[in-house]
Amino acid sequence: METREISQAVISRLPRYYRYLGELKDEGIERISSQELSERMNVTASQIRQDFNNFGGFGQQGYGYNVDYLYKEIGKILGLDQKHNFIIIGAGNLGRALGNYLNFEKRGFIFKGMFDNNDEVVGKEVRGVKVMPMDNLDEFIRANNIDIVVLTIPKNSALNIIDNLVEDGVKAIWNFAHVDLDVPEGVIVENVHLSDSLMKLSYNISRYSKEH
Amino acid sequence: METREISQAVISRLPRYYRYLGELKDEGIERISSQELSERMNVTASQIRQDFNNFGGFGQQGYGYNVDYLYKEIGKILGLDQKHNFIIIGAGNLGRALGNYLNFEKRGFIFKGMFDNNDEVVGKEVRGVKVMPMDNLDEFIRANNIDIVVLTIPKNSALNIIDNLVEDGVKAIWNFAHVDLDVPEGVIVENVHLSDSLMKLSYNISRYSKEH
Repeated sequence: METREISQAVISRLPRYYRYLGELKDEGIERISSQELSERMNVTASQIRQDFNNFGGFGQQGYGYNVDYLYKEIGKILGLDQKHNFIIIGAGNLGRALGNYLNFEKRGFIFKGMFDNNDEVVGKEVRGVKVMPMDNLDEFIRANNIDIVVLTIPKNSALNIIDNLVEDGVKAIWNFAHVDLDVPEGVIVENVHLSDSLMKLSYNISRYSKEH
Repeated sequence: METREISQAVISRLPRYYRYLGELKDEGIERISSQELSERMNVTASQIRQDFNNFGGFGQQGYGYNVDYLYKEIGKILGLDQKHNFIIIGAGNLGRALGNYLNFEKRGFIFKGMFDNNDEVVGKEVRGVKVMPMDNLDEFIRANNIDIVVLTIPKNSALNIIDNLVEDGVKAIWNFAHVDLDVPEGVIVENVHLSDSLMKLSYNISRYSKEH
Protein backbone atom coordinates (compact mmCIF):
# COMPACT_ATOMS: atom_id res chain seq x y z
CA MET A 1 0.00 0.00 0.00
CA GLU A 2 1.32 3.43 -0.96
CA THR A 3 1.20 5.73 2.02
CA ARG A 4 3.85 8.27 1.15
CA GLU A 5 1.55 11.01 -0.11
CA ILE A 6 -0.78 11.10 2.86
CA SER A 7 -0.87 14.48 4.58
CA GLN A 8 -0.14 14.89 8.29
CA ALA A 9 -3.69 16.26 8.66
CA VAL A 10 -5.13 12.91 7.57
CA ILE A 11 -2.64 11.07 9.81
CA SER A 12 -3.73 13.19 12.75
CA ARG A 13 -7.30 12.03 12.25
CA LEU A 14 -6.49 8.29 12.05
CA PRO A 15 -6.05 7.73 15.81
CA ARG A 16 -9.46 9.28 16.38
CA TYR A 17 -11.07 6.89 13.87
CA TYR A 18 -9.27 4.06 15.59
CA ARG A 19 -10.57 5.17 18.98
CA TYR A 20 -14.19 5.39 17.79
CA LEU A 21 -14.00 2.05 15.99
CA GLY A 22 -12.65 0.47 19.17
CA GLU A 23 -15.69 1.83 21.01
CA LEU A 24 -18.07 0.46 18.35
CA LYS A 25 -16.40 -2.93 18.65
CA ASP A 26 -16.79 -2.80 22.45
CA GLU A 27 -20.47 -2.05 21.94
CA GLY A 28 -20.78 -5.12 19.70
CA ILE A 29 -21.59 -3.13 16.55
CA GLU A 30 -20.49 -5.04 13.44
CA ARG A 31 -21.27 -2.71 10.56
CA ILE A 32 -21.56 1.06 10.31
CA SER A 33 -22.31 3.42 7.45
CA SER A 34 -20.15 6.48 6.86
CA GLN A 35 -23.28 8.51 7.69
CA GLU A 36 -23.67 6.91 11.14
CA LEU A 37 -19.94 7.14 11.81
CA SER A 38 -20.05 10.78 10.76
CA GLU A 39 -22.81 11.56 13.28
CA ARG A 40 -20.95 9.87 16.10
CA MET A 41 -17.68 11.58 15.31
CA ASN A 42 -19.10 14.95 14.39
CA VAL A 43 -17.31 15.14 11.05
CA THR A 44 -18.92 15.03 7.60
CA ALA A 45 -19.47 11.68 5.88
CA SER A 46 -17.64 13.04 2.85
CA GLN A 47 -14.60 13.81 5.02
CA ILE A 48 -14.62 10.23 6.26
CA ARG A 49 -14.88 8.82 2.73
CA GLN A 50 -12.12 11.14 1.53
CA ASP A 51 -9.84 10.16 4.40
CA PHE A 52 -10.47 6.45 3.86
CA ASN A 53 -9.93 6.76 0.11
CA ASN A 54 -6.30 7.58 0.89
CA PHE A 55 -5.99 3.96 1.95
CA GLY A 56 -8.08 2.31 -0.72
CA GLY A 57 -11.52 2.98 0.77
CA PHE A 58 -12.02 -0.01 3.13
CA GLY A 59 -15.17 -1.44 1.64
CA GLN A 60 -18.38 -0.51 -0.06
CA GLN A 61 -20.39 2.58 0.49
CA GLY A 62 -24.08 1.77 0.93
CA TYR A 63 -23.36 -1.51 2.67
CA GLY A 64 -21.33 0.40 5.24
CA TYR A 65 -18.03 -0.62 6.76
CA ASN A 66 -17.19 -3.82 8.61
CA VAL A 67 -16.18 -2.40 12.01
CA ASP A 68 -13.77 -5.14 12.97
CA TYR A 69 -12.03 -5.11 9.60
CA LEU A 70 -11.78 -1.33 9.56
CA TYR A 71 -10.41 -1.28 13.11
CA LYS A 72 -7.73 -3.80 12.23
CA GLU A 73 -6.78 -2.11 8.95
CA ILE A 74 -6.44 1.31 10.53
CA GLY A 75 -4.45 -0.31 13.33
CA LYS A 76 -2.06 -1.74 10.74
CA ILE A 77 -1.71 1.62 9.00
CA LEU A 78 -0.89 3.14 12.38
CA GLY A 79 1.76 0.45 12.86
CA LEU A 80 -0.03 -0.92 15.93
CA ASP A 81 0.50 -4.48 14.70
CA GLN A 82 4.24 -3.91 15.30
CA LYS A 83 5.85 -4.18 18.72
CA HIS A 84 7.98 -1.29 19.91
CA ASN A 85 10.08 -1.30 23.06
CA PHE A 86 10.10 2.00 24.91
CA ILE A 87 11.77 3.53 27.93
CA ILE A 88 10.86 6.59 29.94
CA ILE A 89 13.51 9.09 30.97
CA GLY A 90 12.31 11.07 33.97
CA ALA A 91 10.60 9.27 36.86
CA GLY A 92 8.63 12.27 38.13
CA ASN A 93 4.84 12.34 38.29
CA LEU A 94 4.43 12.65 34.53
CA GLY A 95 6.85 9.83 33.77
CA ARG A 96 5.14 7.63 36.34
CA ALA A 97 1.70 8.50 34.94
CA LEU A 98 2.82 7.35 31.49
CA GLY A 99 4.55 4.25 32.87
CA ASN A 100 1.34 3.23 34.61
CA TYR A 101 -0.83 3.60 31.54
CA LEU A 102 -1.68 0.01 30.63
CA ASN A 103 -3.29 0.73 27.27
CA PHE A 104 0.13 1.31 25.72
CA GLU A 105 0.86 -2.42 25.97
CA LYS A 106 -2.44 -3.22 24.24
CA ARG A 107 -1.25 -1.15 21.29
CA GLY A 108 2.13 -2.79 20.98
CA PHE A 109 4.25 -0.42 23.06
CA ILE A 110 6.28 -2.43 25.56
CA PHE A 111 7.50 -0.63 28.66
CA LYS A 112 11.10 -1.81 29.17
CA GLY A 113 12.82 0.63 31.48
CA MET A 114 12.78 3.89 33.34
CA PHE A 115 15.67 6.23 34.08
CA ASP A 116 16.26 9.14 36.41
CA ASN A 117 19.27 11.02 37.74
CA ASN A 118 17.73 11.40 41.19
CA ASP A 119 19.21 8.88 43.63
CA GLU A 120 16.02 8.94 45.70
CA VAL A 121 13.90 7.40 42.95
CA VAL A 122 16.51 5.06 41.47
CA GLY A 123 15.64 1.50 42.50
CA LYS A 124 11.92 2.22 42.93
CA GLU A 125 9.45 0.42 40.72
CA VAL A 126 6.78 1.60 38.32
CA ARG A 127 4.48 -1.24 37.24
CA GLY A 128 7.23 -3.81 37.77
CA VAL A 129 9.88 -1.77 35.98
CA LYS A 130 12.84 -0.59 38.08
CA VAL A 131 14.05 2.99 37.86
CA MET A 132 17.72 2.90 36.78
CA PRO A 133 20.44 5.54 37.02
CA MET A 134 21.24 7.60 33.92
CA ASP A 135 24.75 6.05 33.73
CA ASN A 136 23.19 2.81 32.47
CA LEU A 137 21.13 4.52 29.78
CA ASP A 138 23.17 4.11 26.59
CA GLU A 139 24.10 0.52 27.30
CA PHE A 140 20.48 -0.36 28.10
CA ILE A 141 19.15 1.19 24.89
CA ARG A 142 21.65 -0.69 22.76
CA ALA A 143 21.16 -4.01 24.56
CA ASN A 144 17.35 -3.95 24.64
CA ASN A 145 16.38 -2.87 21.16
CA ILE A 146 14.70 0.31 22.35
CA ASP A 147 12.81 2.10 19.54
CA ILE A 148 11.04 4.83 21.46
CA VAL A 149 12.25 7.12 24.23
CA VAL A 150 9.73 9.10 26.24
CA LEU A 151 11.26 12.29 27.60
CA THR A 152 9.62 13.65 30.74
CA ILE A 153 12.56 15.72 31.92
CA PRO A 154 13.29 19.45 31.93
CA LYS A 155 14.31 21.29 28.78
CA ASN A 156 18.04 21.46 29.46
CA SER A 157 18.33 17.81 30.42
CA ALA A 158 16.57 16.89 27.19
CA LEU A 159 18.96 19.03 25.14
CA ASN A 160 21.94 17.42 26.90
CA ILE A 161 21.04 13.83 26.06
CA ILE A 162 19.35 14.06 22.69
CA ASP A 163 22.53 13.51 20.60
CA ASN A 164 23.39 10.41 22.65
CA LEU A 165 19.94 8.97 22.13
CA VAL A 166 20.29 9.43 18.39
CA GLU A 167 23.71 7.76 18.42
CA ASP A 168 22.27 4.85 20.39
CA GLY A 169 19.96 4.21 17.47
CA VAL A 170 16.65 5.36 18.93
CA LYS A 171 13.98 5.66 16.21
CA ALA A 172 11.57 8.02 17.87
CA ILE A 173 11.23 10.49 20.71
CA TRP A 174 7.93 11.18 22.44
CA ASN A 175 8.89 14.55 23.79
CA PHE A 176 7.21 16.17 26.81
CA ALA A 177 10.13 18.55 27.48
CA HIS A 178 9.28 22.18 26.72
CA VAL A 179 11.70 22.50 23.86
CA ASP A 180 11.89 21.66 20.17
CA LEU A 181 14.51 18.97 19.59
CA ASP A 182 16.92 19.09 16.69
CA VAL A 183 17.38 15.55 15.35
CA PRO A 184 18.68 14.09 12.07
CA GLU A 185 16.23 13.08 9.37
CA GLY A 186 14.76 9.68 10.04
CA VAL A 187 14.39 10.19 13.78
CA ILE A 188 10.73 10.86 14.54
CA VAL A 189 9.81 13.43 17.18
CA GLU A 190 6.25 13.71 18.44
CA ASN A 191 5.88 16.66 20.78
CA VAL A 192 3.41 17.02 23.60
CA HIS A 193 3.91 20.62 24.66
CA LEU A 194 1.42 20.86 27.53
CA SER A 195 2.15 24.49 28.13
CA ASP A 196 1.39 25.36 24.48
CA SER A 197 -1.89 23.49 24.77
CA LEU A 198 -2.89 25.45 27.86
CA MET A 199 -2.04 28.74 26.11
CA LYS A 200 -4.28 27.78 23.22
CA LEU A 201 -7.05 27.15 25.74
CA SER A 202 -6.36 30.54 27.28
CA TYR A 203 -6.53 32.24 23.87
CA ASN A 204 -9.89 30.65 23.14
CA ILE A 205 -11.35 31.72 26.50
CA SER A 206 -10.15 35.23 25.96
CA ARG A 207 -11.43 35.42 22.38
CA TYR A 208 -14.83 34.08 23.39
CA SER A 209 -15.22 36.55 26.22
CA LYS A 210 -14.36 39.45 23.87
CA GLU A 211 -17.03 38.34 21.42
CA HIS A 212 -19.81 38.03 24.00
CA MET B 1 -7.95 44.62 17.96
CA GLU B 2 -9.97 42.38 15.67
CA THR B 3 -9.07 38.75 16.24
CA ARG B 4 -12.19 36.98 15.08
CA GLU B 5 -10.93 35.93 11.65
CA ILE B 6 -7.69 34.31 12.82
CA SER B 7 -7.42 30.65 11.91
CA GLN B 8 -6.79 27.94 14.50
CA ALA B 9 -3.57 27.12 12.60
CA VAL B 10 -2.20 30.59 13.39
CA ILE B 11 -3.43 30.29 16.99
CA SER B 12 -1.63 26.98 17.32
CA ARG B 13 1.63 28.67 16.38
CA LEU B 14 1.32 31.57 18.83
CA PRO B 15 2.38 29.61 21.96
CA ARG B 16 5.51 28.53 20.12
CA TYR B 17 6.38 32.15 19.27
CA TYR B 18 5.74 33.03 22.88
CA ARG B 19 8.04 30.25 24.07
CA TYR B 20 10.90 31.31 21.77
CA LEU B 21 10.51 34.98 22.66
CA GLY B 22 10.66 34.04 26.34
CA GLU B 23 13.95 32.28 25.67
CA LEU B 24 15.33 35.30 23.79
CA LYS B 25 14.36 37.53 26.71
CA ASP B 26 16.11 35.14 29.12
CA GLU B 27 19.22 35.37 26.95
CA GLY B 28 19.10 39.17 27.16
CA ILE B 29 18.39 39.69 23.45
CA GLU B 30 16.48 42.93 22.88
CA ARG B 31 15.83 43.01 19.14
CA ILE B 32 15.49 40.30 16.54
CA SER B 33 14.80 40.33 12.81
CA SER B 34 12.19 38.05 11.31
CA GLN B 35 15.12 36.38 9.48
CA GLU B 36 16.96 35.54 12.71
CA LEU B 37 13.75 34.43 14.42
CA SER B 38 12.97 32.28 11.40
CA GLU B 39 16.34 30.48 11.63
CA ARG B 40 15.90 29.80 15.31
CA MET B 41 12.37 28.52 14.93
CA ASN B 42 12.87 26.69 11.67
CA VAL B 43 9.96 28.37 9.92
CA THR B 44 10.20 30.79 6.99
CA ALA B 45 10.52 34.51 7.66
CA SER B 46 7.55 35.10 5.40
CA GLN B 47 5.43 32.75 7.54
CA ILE B 48 6.39 34.76 10.62
CA ARG B 49 5.53 38.07 8.96
CA GLN B 50 2.25 36.65 7.69
CA ASP B 51 1.33 35.32 11.13
CA PHE B 52 2.20 38.60 12.82
CA ASN B 53 0.28 40.61 10.23
CA ASN B 54 -2.89 39.01 11.59
CA PHE B 55 -2.29 41.09 14.69
CA GLY B 56 -1.14 44.32 13.10
CA GLY B 57 2.49 43.34 12.46
CA PHE B 58 4.19 44.26 15.77
CA GLY B 59 6.73 46.74 14.48
CA GLN B 60 8.91 47.51 11.53
CA GLN B 61 10.55 45.07 9.26
CA GLY B 62 14.25 45.89 8.68
CA TYR B 63 14.65 47.26 12.17
CA GLY B 64 13.48 43.91 13.52
CA TYR B 65 11.16 43.32 16.43
CA ASN B 66 11.51 44.52 19.99
CA VAL B 67 11.64 41.19 21.85
CA ASP B 68 10.15 42.38 25.11
CA TYR B 69 7.29 44.23 23.38
CA LEU B 70 6.53 41.28 21.11
CA TYR B 71 6.58 38.86 24.04
CA LYS B 72 4.13 41.01 25.98
CA GLU B 73 1.81 41.59 23.02
CA ILE B 74 1.63 37.90 22.11
CA GLY B 75 1.06 37.16 25.80
CA LYS B 76 -1.91 39.55 25.75
CA ILE B 77 -3.33 37.97 22.61
CA LEU B 78 -3.04 34.59 24.31
CA GLY B 79 -4.93 36.02 27.29
CA LEU B 80 -1.98 35.43 29.61
CA ASP B 81 -2.44 38.88 31.15
CA GLN B 82 -5.73 37.57 32.59
CA LYS B 83 -5.94 35.45 35.74
CA HIS B 84 -7.83 32.16 35.54
CA ASN B 85 -8.60 29.94 38.51
CA PHE B 86 -8.38 26.26 37.77
CA ILE B 87 -9.02 22.97 39.52
CA ILE B 88 -7.84 19.48 38.69
CA ILE B 89 -10.23 16.54 38.85
CA GLY B 90 -8.29 13.32 39.27
CA ALA B 91 -5.41 13.17 41.75
CA GLY B 92 -3.53 10.33 40.07
CA ASN B 93 0.00 10.67 38.73
CA LEU B 94 -1.04 12.81 35.78
CA GLY B 95 -3.18 15.15 37.90
CA ARG B 96 -0.35 15.50 40.41
CA ALA B 97 2.17 16.15 37.64
CA LEU B 98 0.02 19.02 36.35
CA GLY B 99 -0.64 20.34 39.85
CA ASN B 100 3.09 20.49 40.51
CA TYR B 101 3.91 22.38 37.35
CA LEU B 102 4.82 25.85 38.62
CA ASN B 103 4.97 27.59 35.26
CA PHE B 104 1.19 27.63 35.08
CA GLU B 105 1.12 30.26 37.82
CA LYS B 106 3.61 32.41 35.91
CA ARG B 107 1.14 32.45 33.02
CA GLY B 108 -1.87 33.46 35.05
CA PHE B 109 -3.34 30.05 35.83
CA ILE B 110 -4.02 29.80 39.55
CA PHE B 111 -4.26 26.31 41.05
CA LYS B 112 -7.21 26.42 43.45
CA GLY B 113 -8.28 22.88 44.18
CA MET B 114 -7.98 19.21 43.44
CA PHE B 115 -10.68 16.54 43.57
CA ASP B 116 -10.76 12.78 43.60
CA ASN B 117 -13.29 10.10 44.48
CA ASN B 118 -10.64 7.86 46.06
CA ASP B 119 -10.77 8.11 49.87
CA GLU B 120 -7.09 7.22 50.10
CA VAL B 121 -5.94 10.39 48.36
CA VAL B 122 -8.58 12.78 49.74
CA GLY B 123 -6.91 15.00 52.33
CA LYS B 124 -3.43 14.68 50.81
CA GLU B 125 -1.74 17.79 49.50
CA VAL B 126 -0.31 18.72 46.11
CA ARG B 127 1.76 21.89 46.25
CA GLY B 128 -0.21 23.19 49.23
CA VAL B 129 -3.59 22.36 47.70
CA LYS B 130 -5.70 19.74 49.53
CA VAL B 131 -7.37 16.94 47.59
CA MET B 132 -11.13 17.18 48.26
CA PRO B 133 -13.89 14.61 47.77
CA MET B 134 -16.06 14.83 44.67
CA ASP B 135 -19.13 15.67 46.77
CA ASN B 136 -17.74 19.15 47.33
CA LEU B 137 -17.06 19.79 43.66
CA ASP B 138 -20.06 21.80 42.44
CA GLU B 139 -20.17 24.01 45.51
CA PHE B 140 -16.44 24.68 45.26
CA ILE B 141 -16.59 25.65 41.58
CA ARG B 142 -19.44 28.10 42.19
CA ALA B 143 -17.87 29.62 45.31
CA ASN B 144 -14.36 30.04 43.93
CA ASN B 145 -14.89 31.47 40.48
CA ILE B 146 -13.32 28.49 38.72
CA ASP B 147 -12.87 29.13 34.98
CA ILE B 148 -10.90 26.06 33.96
CA VAL B 149 -11.29 22.42 34.91
CA VAL B 150 -8.50 19.99 34.17
CA LEU B 151 -9.83 16.46 33.70
CA THR B 152 -7.34 13.69 34.44
CA ILE B 153 -9.90 10.95 35.05
CA PRO B 154 -11.06 7.94 33.02
CA LYS B 155 -13.40 8.36 30.09
CA ASN B 156 -16.62 7.29 31.83
CA SER B 157 -16.03 9.49 34.86
CA ALA B 158 -15.49 12.43 32.52
CA LEU B 159 -18.72 11.71 30.66
CA ASN B 160 -20.59 11.48 33.97
CA ILE B 161 -19.61 14.90 35.29
CA ILE B 162 -19.32 17.02 32.16
CA ASP B 163 -22.92 18.31 32.24
CA ASN B 164 -22.58 19.33 35.89
CA LEU B 165 -19.38 21.23 35.15
CA VAL B 166 -21.14 23.15 32.40
CA GLU B 167 -24.07 23.95 34.72
CA ASP B 168 -21.63 25.18 37.36
CA GLY B 169 -20.48 27.81 34.87
CA VAL B 170 -17.06 26.46 33.95
CA LYS B 171 -15.66 28.26 30.90
CA ALA B 172 -13.13 25.74 29.69
CA ILE B 173 -12.10 22.11 30.01
CA TRP B 174 -8.53 20.96 29.58
CA ASN B 175 -9.36 17.38 28.77
CA PHE B 176 -6.92 14.50 29.27
CA ALA B 177 -9.67 11.84 29.33
CA HIS B 178 -9.66 9.62 26.24
CA VAL B 179 -12.98 10.82 24.96
CA ASP B 180 -14.40 13.72 22.99
CA LEU B 181 -16.68 15.79 25.20
CA ASP B 182 -19.96 17.18 24.01
CA VAL B 183 -20.41 20.69 25.43
CA PRO B 184 -22.62 23.66 24.55
CA GLU B 185 -21.22 26.44 22.39
CA GLY B 186 -19.18 28.86 24.41
CA VAL B 187 -17.52 26.21 26.56
CA ILE B 188 -13.97 25.70 25.33
CA VAL B 189 -12.50 22.22 25.23
CA GLU B 190 -8.80 21.69 24.62
CA ASN B 191 -7.97 18.02 24.28
CA VAL B 192 -4.70 16.33 25.12
CA HIS B 193 -5.26 12.82 23.81
CA LEU B 194 -1.94 11.20 24.75
CA SER B 195 -2.89 7.91 23.20
CA ASP B 196 -3.66 9.60 19.84
CA SER B 197 -0.28 11.31 19.98
CA LEU B 198 1.51 8.01 20.55
CA MET B 199 -0.36 6.44 17.62
CA LYS B 200 0.77 9.27 15.38
CA LEU B 201 4.34 8.57 16.49
CA SER B 202 3.81 4.89 15.72
CA TYR B 203 2.47 5.71 12.25
CA ASN B 204 5.50 7.83 11.46
CA ILE B 205 7.95 5.13 12.61
CA SER B 206 6.17 2.58 10.52
CA ARG B 207 5.99 4.82 7.44
CA TYR B 208 9.68 5.69 7.69
CA SER B 209 10.75 2.06 8.00
CA LYS B 210 8.68 1.16 4.91
CA GLU B 211 10.38 3.88 2.91
CA HIS B 212 13.95 2.89 3.87
